[in-house]
Amino acid sequence: MTQKLIIWTYDWLPEGPRGFVRDLRLRWAAEEAGLPYDVRTIAFEDRATNHLDRQPFGQVPFLTDGDIKIFESGAGLLHLARKSEKLMPRDPIGEAETLQWVIAALNSMEMVTVPWWFLKMSGEHDNGLTDWTDSRLAHLEAVLGQREWLAANSFTVADLLMADVLRVPTVRAHGNRPASEAYVKRMTARPGFRKAYADQMAHFAASDQKRAECR
Amino acid sequence: MTQKLIIWTYDWLPEGPRGFVRDLRLRWAAEEAGLPYDVRTIAFEDRATNHLDRQPFGQVPFLTDGDIKIFESGAGLLHLARKSEKLMPRDPIGEAETLQWVIAALNSMEMVTVPWWFLKMSGEHDNGLTDWTDSRLAHLEAVLGQREWLAANSFTVADLLMADVLRVPTVRAHGNRPASEAYVKRMTARPGFRKAYADQMAHFAASDQKRAECR
Repeated sequence: MTQKLIIWTYDWLPEGPRGFVRDLRLRWAAEEAGLPYDVRTIAFEDRATNHLDRQPFGQVPFLTDGDIKIFESGAGLLHLARKSEKLMPRDPIGEAETLQWVIAALNSMEMVTVPWWFLKMSGEHDNGLTDWTDSRLAHLEAVLGQREWLAANSFTVADLLMADVLRVPTVRAHGNRPASEAYVKRMTARPGFRKAYADQMAHFAASDQKRAECR
Repeated sequence: MTQKLIIWTYDWLPEGPRGFVRDLRLRWAAEEAGLPYDVRTIAFEDRATNHLDRQPFGQVPFLTDGDIKIFESGAGLLHLARKSEKLMPRDPIGEAETLQWVIAALNSMEMVTVPWWFLKMSGEHDNGLTDWTDSRLAHLEAVLGQREWLAANSFTVADLLMADVLRVPTVRAHGNRPASEAYVKRMTARPGFRKAYADQMAHFAASDQKRAECR
């Protein structure tokens, strides 16, 4: 018997990051693949120290799959991709294409865009990462202008992840990149994304309710 | 017959980044695994446009493995890890541990440390990413104080990659982190690293020579 996946996230969170916490990536992938899962929580309040044995940087999400425990949303996505052809094709070329674009999303895009928007959110609107961000976004725009999917002529976890990178409001509002915008719209219109997003929002809304009752 | 791997890098490069270009990661992995490989080059001079069909962000390295072409050094490492147990164990738990630490190196560490040292190199010594960098390095120091290897109680591509992240001079010189320093020393003392490093340095030294002759 296959055990249900368990996706771990916080029990509560301020409103700002709701809809963007990375358990959404794992929920979305599980929805696309039709893999059953439960969501469990660790306390937001003591997050700096309460789960370092499960996530050594004190972050969420992490994933339990039977005996396997895995942290980093990117690693969780690649783990789930090995379980379902709906997330990654099984031929070696299709797998390599998916893998390279997953890593590109994490290490060529987010490595620049995340610290860039972090500095902007910290008040440094014109920061030293802007040119680099512009360049990476322009390169990706050129790719997305040529094709519907990043890898293997089909939806893969690479699209799921790249769309999640590009839908961050600060990134999405930056510059005129019609192919990237159309791509984000296409990907976030998928039933799997909509369900994952609605479920994450409902999870945190319910936690507000519980929190209020306990006071 | 298995075809030789081909690792692609630049034909020449200024002195600063030599010894740190990421083809070193792939050379090192191939050396550890005993996988035969050749090194081929693309022109540094026209790098912004001359290989976008092979690397859509205009970077190196990329890898050819028979019919498979793969860019992003992190993706190349995971591809090579699937070819050799010397880079990643074959049991599902060991694989998951390796995968999560590879992604942690790329997306929890480098996503903070690379833009941080980039800003420092650009003259912003006290930049808005310093606290975040300190926190990530401290979390990793706590892990490395407890064990010899990141994953699966053995050397894996996760160690190769994390050591390459930590050996960047700006990162290595930052703060007092004895476990991380000992880890970098252990990993870079491995014959596979020493060979890969010496070969990359020799490759670029030879290209200086050729350049001088052509002038």
